[in-house]
Amino acid sequence: MSKGTITFMNEKKKINAAILIIGNEILSGRTQDTNTSTLANWLNSLGVKVNEVRVIPDEEKVIVDTLNYLRKNYNYVFTTGGIGPTHDDITAESVSKVFNRKYEIHKEAFKILESYYKPGEFNEGRQKMVWMPENAELILNPTSGAPGFSVDNVFCLPGVPSILKSMLGGLRNKIIGGEPILSHTISLKTVESEIASSLTKVQEQNKDIEIGSYPFFHAGKLGVSIVIRSEDQTKIDACNSQILEFVKEKKIEIVER
Amino acid sequence: MSKGTITFMNEKKKINAAILIIGNEILSGRTQDTNTSTLANWLNSLGVKVNEVRVIPDEEKVIVDTLNYLRKNYNYVFTTGGIGPTHDDITAESVSKVFNRKYEIHKEAFKILESYYKPGEFNEGRQKMVWMPENAELILNPTSGAPGFSVDNVFCLPGVPSILKSMLGGLRNKIIGGEPILSHTISLKTVESEIASSLTKVQEQNKDIEIGSYPFFHAGKLGVSIVIRSEDQTKIDACNSQILEFVKEKKIEIVER
Repeated sequence: MSKGTITFMNEKKKINAAILIIGNEILSGRTQDTNTSTLANWLNSLGVKVNEVRVIPDEEKVIVDTLNYLRKNYNYVFTTGGIGPTHDDITAESVSKVFNRKYEIHKEAFKILESYYKPGEFNEGRQKMVWMPENAELILNPTSGAPGFSVDNVFCLPGVPSILKSMLGGLRNKIIGGEPILSHTISLKTVESEIASSLTKVQEQNKDIEIGSYPFFHAGKLGVSIVIRSEDQTKIDACNSQILEFVKEKKIEIVER
Repeated sequence: MSKGTITFMNEKKKINAAILIIGNEILSGRTQDTNTSTLANWLNSLGVKVNEVRVIPDEEKVIVDTLNYLRKNYNYVFTTGGIGPTHDDITAESVSKVFNRKYEIHKEAFKILESYYKPGEFNEGRQKMVWMPENAELILNPTSGAPGFSVDNVFCLPGVPSILKSMLGGLRNKIIGGEPILSHTISLKTVESEIASSLTKVQEQNKDIEIGSYPFFHAGKLGVSIVIRSEDQTKIDACNSQILEFVKEKKIEIVER
């Protein structure tokens, strides 16, 4: 085995993503976003780490500028919202501008929706949903017909959570992830200040591991969850042992959540 | 009344804000953010429009850079998360760097926590929570003692939703809003494509009004909510009449949600 190969095998392949939530309804507080956690959990399972989320209004210039930044700075960008039939659905046209592509009828999408609807029901409003950037790749929609699409590393999904969820299965093979990000949680019957200094020491001894501390108030229980995240199970295990050591010393109770 | 005064009265005072959610636990999908909608609804009621939300990791450089951008581009910035006692709580130190202020013990915060805890309980971990940027203004915390703080137009709140909520009351008089943003919702038993072209016409005739269209699937009902938003009730009413006109023409049923 050449030295080059060994180096390659030891290198961690880190793949990252940004999520862009497009929608005035989230910014106004009217709608509670749940697509971020859906996408983040799904991407994690594919070995893709979400590094940034932005929520922006339905304004073309903002969408174009933000997408241009995100697509150049992350391996993948996932947008949600703005691909329906109404006037405030401007994601597809904005993405066309981002990539300098024609905004036109996507023939395959047209066929899909033409056969999805009953004769006569594929009206003008619905036809708006087949307008996409030239040569966009479709993301099939098993729930309500209208496909999402991708251009280069930008994947455009709908805002309705149940429809978005149903489209992830078909998208899975288009995403090339890195090593899966593993995590381990230890929940303790304590408060953060009791473990803060011990946890700091563990973090200092494990600089490449992400250790988070999260207080919880849940079903009458009050405590702290420590979450260890890494691509390397051995490192997680080592970190876990160090934490369990001070937990034992301090006689802190471990709880189920 | 001078011409100047008339101009002033006719001018809409638009006050905007950005929300910055600091926390790996949101990016990993482990925790569902609800602080965005809490803050957005609260800010709306004060006449402050949220123009952007970002979720970023617990990394100092990212926090500093993002805050520097947001505080210069919006009237207010609200951060959530990262002000607890553990090693991953780095918001206060980051804000000190943003404003080039010393990161030091805040005397008033120290006194508050010293009397909040029982003698001997105000330990090293807890004392971390009184380290803040020099001359920060405190945001009182009626739930768990440890205050948030503000520097200039940046307001730093905790990540735990129930604690954050309890702190908003005390913050209200520090926020000077513009005209309250009013909204009106019409829910229809229809699908978006049926109303898309009529709604586009209404939007074209009311360019300064925000009209959003949101499909819903709720308690067995399927429909569309049209949301009209503006600072001007007269304009909302006019827009509402135009929508009700095409709704009547199309014989679409109005539903309660």
